[in-house]
Amino acid sequence: MHHIDLQIEKDIYGANNRIADANAALLAKHGVRAFDLLGAIGSGKTALIERMVPLLSARGLRAGAIAGDVFGDDDFRRIVALGIPAVNANTGKECHLDAHLVEHAIEDLPLDEIDLLFIENVGNMVCPTDFRLGAEKRIVIVSSTEGDDVVNKHPMIFRDGHIGVINKVDLAPLVGANLDRMESDVHRYNPRMPVFRTNLKTGDGVSPLLDAILS
Amino acid sequence: MHHIDLQIEKDIYGANNRIADANAALLAKHGVRAFDLLGAIGSGKTALIERMVPLLSARGLRAGAIAGDVFGDDDFRRIVALGIPAVNANTGKECHLDAHLVEHAIEDLPLDEIDLLFIENVGNMVCPTDFRLGAEKRIVIVSSTEGDDVVNKHPMIFRDGHIGVINKVDLAPLVGANLDRMESDVHRYNPRMPVFRTNLKTGDGVSPLLDAILS
Repeated sequence: MHHIDLQIEKDIYGANNRIADANAALLAKHGVRAFDLLGAIGSGKTALIERMVPLLSARGLRAGAIAGDVFGDDDFRRIVALGIPAVNANTGKECHLDAHLVEHAIEDLPLDEIDLLFIENVGNMVCPTDFRLGAEKRIVIVSSTEGDDVVNKHPMIFRDGHIGVINKVDLAPLVGANLDRMESDVHRYNPRMPVFRTNLKTGDGVSPLLDAILS
Repeated sequence: MHHIDLQIEKDIYGANNRIADANAALLAKHGVRAFDLLGAIGSGKTALIERMVPLLSARGLRAGAIAGDVFGDDDFRRIVALGIPAVNANTGKECHLDAHLVEHAIEDLPLDEIDLLFIENVGNMVCPTDFRLGAEKRIVIVSSTEGDDVVNKHPMIFRDGHIGVINKVDLAPLVGANLDRMESDVHRYNPRMPVFRTNLKTGDGVSPLLDAILS
């Protein structure tokens, strides 16, 4: 039984990875760079998109977005308000986007009118890890209000990520979060991951983060 | 293929529910009331246990706990520091506890020496919903810092829950969270769910919440 489970698991990941590769190829063909945004509910994934879009616009870069959520369109509506092409991707019950959902979302985007695609994953730090979507980089966001042990509780998402963001740094003293612990936990799991500290309420720290994303 | 998937899904839930019923029967036999604590990472699940244990102790009630996490023992160590019997349940990769994991954790607890068992689920608001553990009530915790759209994004966990908690009410003005919206979203999905507002940093609001849990 365990054997069969493993086989099913392998097939699921294998099938997902094949579609992820096709997504990456399609995006590359249209000159679109895609980024997978991962983090818990309320960590600041949508807020990061809100902060980056005007900065990108000032650099002559056009963004699009896929808003992943289990249910509803709260994030989608915030992204639409930015005036960029966006698709709402509800997973229904699933706790992560997969490459197939992203494949369909991409079909609804004007790929020749965007340079960058932000794929906002479903808000949690466990399930999205194993499902590649076809993005170039994974950006992992945590907030000080999640507790300074949040990184230590989720090694996998940091091992597989490319850029780390610690958000809500202004609230760290209020919740007693040690930002240095969070950053050193990231580097324990992924020594090469650059980590940026942001306050997405004010926009502090977004510019160097954006440079790293685009590098 | 979809047919086969559905069958597997049904079997998984059916098997889980049978073990959950057995857990409930075993706990009842030993006079232990169990509560499943659900919420995102950093919502305040462990902090709630920390606040309730001394209040329970003052009422002559002995608590025990199961600390569920994907990885590590950060929450477990906080619970052990309370001086109550506790078991650390790491799921490895899974984003939720299941009845089988809880069954094993219960084997390691001195059931005749506790009156209440708090089962702290893995920190996210999607996966734990479908997996009953054998608890009497489900307590769903959200924090203002998760954004006041957090309830609306997770209807299922509220539909299946018994008691709602909105934590970090002191930070609501700082993050611009409308607590009334959060509470009315809860009642839209589950009109009968009592909702309590807490500041677990200070302990504000815990006493009436505890009354509801024990009622």
